[in-house]
Amino acid sequence: MLEELKKRVYEANIALPKYDLVRFTWGNVSEIDRESGYFAIKPSGVEYDKMTPDDMVIMDMNGKKIEGRYEPSSDTATHIELYKAFADVGGIVHTHSIYATSWAQSGRSIPCYGTTHADYFYGEVPCIRCLTKDEIDADYEGNTGSLIVKEFIRLCKDPAAVPAVLCKNHGPFTWGVDAKDAVHNAVILEEVAKMAYLSESINHHVQSAPQEVQDKHYYRKHGANAYYGQK
Amino acid sequence: MLEELKKRVYEANIALPKYDLVRFTWGNVSEIDRESGYFAIKPSGVEYDKMTPDDMVIMDMNGKKIEGRYEPSSDTATHIELYKAFADVGGIVHTHSIYATSWAQSGRSIPCYGTTHADYFYGEVPCIRCLTKDEIDADYEGNTGSLIVKEFIRLCKDPAAVPAVLCKNHGPFTWGVDAKDAVHNAVILEEVAKMAYLSESINHHVQSAPQEVQDKHYYRKHGANAYYGQK
Amino acid sequence: MLEELKKRVYEANIALPKYDLVRFTWGNVSEIDRESGYFAIKPSGVEYDKMTPDDMVIMDMNGKKIEGRYEPSSDTATHIELYKAFADVGGIVHTHSIYATSWAQSGRSIPCYGTTHADYFYGEVPCIRCLTKDEIDADYEGNTGSLIVKEFIRLCKDPAAVPAVLCKNHGPFTWGVDAKDAVHNAVILEEVAKMAYLSESINHHVQSAPQEVQDKHYYRKHGANAYYGQK
Amino acid sequence: MLEELKKRVYEANIALPKYDLVRFTWGNVSEIDRESGYFAIKPSGVEYDKMTPDDMVIMDMNGKKIEGRYEPSSDTATHIELYKAFADVGGIVHTHSIYATSWAQSGRSIPCYGTTHADYFYGEVPCIRCLTKDEIDADYEGNTGSLIVKEFIRLCKDPAAVPAVLCKNHGPFTWGVDAKDAVHNAVILEEVAKMAYLSESINHHVQSAPQEVQDKHYYRKHGANAYYGQK
Repeated sequence: MLEELKKRVYEANIALPKYDLVRFTWGNVSEIDRESGYFAIKPSGVEYDKMTPDDMVIMDMNGKKIEGRYEPSSDTATHIELYKAFADVGGIVHTHSIYATSWAQSGRSIPCYGTTHADYFYGEVPCIRCLTKDEIDADYEGNTGSLIVKEFIRLCKDPAAVPAVLCKNHGPFTWGVDAKDAVHNAVILEEVAKMAYLSESINHHVQSAPQEVQDKHYYRKHGANAYYGQK
Repeated sequence: MLEELKKRVYEANIALPKYDLVRFTWGNVSEIDRESGYFAIKPSGVEYDKMTPDDMVIMDMNGKKIEGRYEPSSDTATHIELYKAFADVGGIVHTHSIYATSWAQSGRSIPCYGTTHADYFYGEVPCIRCLTKDEIDADYEGNTGSLIVKEFIRLCKDPAAVPAVLCKNHGPFTWGVDAKDAVHNAVILEEVAKMAYLSESINHHVQSAPQEVQDKHYYRKHGANAYYGQK
Repeated sequence: MLEELKKRVYEANIALPKYDLVRFTWGNVSEIDRESGYFAIKPSGVEYDKMTPDDMVIMDMNGKKIEGRYEPSSDTATHIELYKAFADVGGIVHTHSIYATSWAQSGRSIPCYGTTHADYFYGEVPCIRCLTKDEIDADYEGNTGSLIVKEFIRLCKDPAAVPAVLCKNHGPFTWGVDAKDAVHNAVILEEVAKMAYLSESINHHVQSAPQEVQDKHYYRKHGANAYYGQK
Repeated sequence: MLEELKKRVYEANIALPKYDLVRFTWGNVSEIDRESGYFAIKPSGVEYDKMTPDDMVIMDMNGKKIEGRYEPSSDTATHIELYKAFADVGGIVHTHSIYATSWAQSGRSIPCYGTTHADYFYGEVPCIRCLTKDEIDADYEGNTGSLIVKEFIRLCKDPAAVPAVLCKNHGPFTWGVDAKDAVHNAVILEEVAKMAYLSESINHHVQSAPQEVQDKHYYRKHGANAYYGQK
């Protein structure tokens, strides 16, 4: 079972440079096996074109390494906090993709300007604050994860309906039902971030898409009455 | 005959990712056989690199599936309305291409800033309003098509001279004499949309190209006195 | 001899899509044989991936076709005017490349903001006015060429030192000692146009590079005291 | 030994077009052998796809050619000044990469807007002034190098912590422990430059990342307490 998990996580990781979301060793993907509570994650600082499935690191939810010759991604503690709090999340991605990171650097949430956004993210993709110095000093990566969770609760956001967040001055995390789905959402977030930037440049007074348009597109693809795709 | 149609529609569909106009399963192309009244269209939510010509769905003009194991594109009803109203249109494309979609999201028509635009689109490419909540609830995709038709009539636009439209907060539709021609226009619309955005950024007071320049280029390529290309 | 000429012109033409300067059938390159007064040019409206060297059209300076089964580029008369007036020019390129065309559409000359520009173009790349309706009606393509020539004289520009021009609401022409060199200049113009746009976006009060920096770089590569490259 | 050096410098040079940092013959990379005091550098004006490792030129620190059939890069004297002053630098790169050059043309230092920047460059990447006419006339390339050194001293910048500089109206130089590392930094500088530009476009009042965030990311990857990557 873990061999399959490592293979899927490997493939999701090497999809990041393929989709032009990362450079060099940036970015990381994990996927969890909810039965065992173990997850596989990219090793830290290893280049994508030199990785193999066997290089994926198996971790448990206490941050203990179960298997693997490498150290896990330095962002492992963030993944753990998200897996703990978001019970339906099966895969997590972190990148520094250009447009999503630029929104994060600018400190702004991405408004929903159209149906491309609404098809995947219900409402704006929130940009959450930086950690304080105390939070950074105590446990930077762990507190990054718990702040995401706290902010989703405070903002009444459902992580299944908004599978992405921007961390201010840092970059995006996305998630999904598995690693592949989380990568899928990372690709779409980047497209949506680019188009939102362009839409504001083309019309400085652009408004969010009407709520009924957002609802139509989101619910055309999600929930009991969805009719996009095959049955 | 339908085998040829399905093959052409398949090839036009897989041209969309090749020209960088779509991601994943986004976008769809159809082509109609005017004699039988049947058209072939992309199946809904199927990935481009897994599609075959046989996966294309044959539909009639009442929205009834004639052949195919998949459900047709969720935008099928929009295609039907356009085929019904625009008698000379043989192929239709819908994408979420980055720059054209950004103009749609910004709610602005694309002005004709130069000869690249004038060579293919006579005058501005209109951005039409969103559907109302009632129009969405009653028949979203069908009403999208009929609104395009109504707006072209109201704006006195000839669909042969302006083979493209932007749907506000959504994205572009383009059309042509067949599926390949419609894809061609989708590629050009994206280039024109990018250059219009850049032109406004370079000169905040940019004006549309003089009417005589637009006329010269459009009629150099279209109509009785055209002399571009081979005889 | 003409076979060699046709081969060089063919190769220069297919370099245009390779360098991402054109789409479909847009753009054209020619090269002249000054001894015979004949030049080879791309056929009109033929796709790049279907062209062969034999498809190049041989023309004389009166616009008479000497050889070739196709009609020559619709811009042929523009090339003739430039060859007539600019005695040292051996090759000419016309494209609708994105950034150079956007400057042309915006009606602005490209200022010299740095050494990348100064290495190839001495001073700003001028944007010349549109033709009048009378000039268009009388001989659009020929008058485009003669206007370029007149404007270079009026602006005291040496076509060897500024091997490029922007035609307002249309796009760029570049030239060089032969077809390959003209394509080279078209590529660089596009880079320079993109960087000038970005420089203005990053600093709304950006100034042209100091004259001594422009002089240093231009004369490091051109003229009697050049020392860039191999002897 | 020098064969290995030439091979590494060759590979670092041909990485520049691969990473889309240069066009044609632009840009150059060198690496120094600190024991002999010799360094290998790209020949001047030679195209990347025609170069071989044997074409690299071996120079000494007085600017004397030790080996090689070609003239060295015209920027050789700049490299020498940097090697003389920055004792821990083993490799140097100069490019005209689009976004970094646009910041240089705009005359602005790149602020640290996020962790992508902070991971590699501690604090802003400085843009230094143009040379004066006297400095240009006396020794353009040498004085470019010595001005970089003087400015790093004046600004109290550690070249190991900020392995990049922008020369106003010209472009970037980056450096590293060897040629490959310097290229790595050139790639990252370009990404950081693009994201800084976008961040300012998305939020006209964007602020630098908080100091504690910059510190955390820089020291997570550098120095005694680094924990990114493998041990």
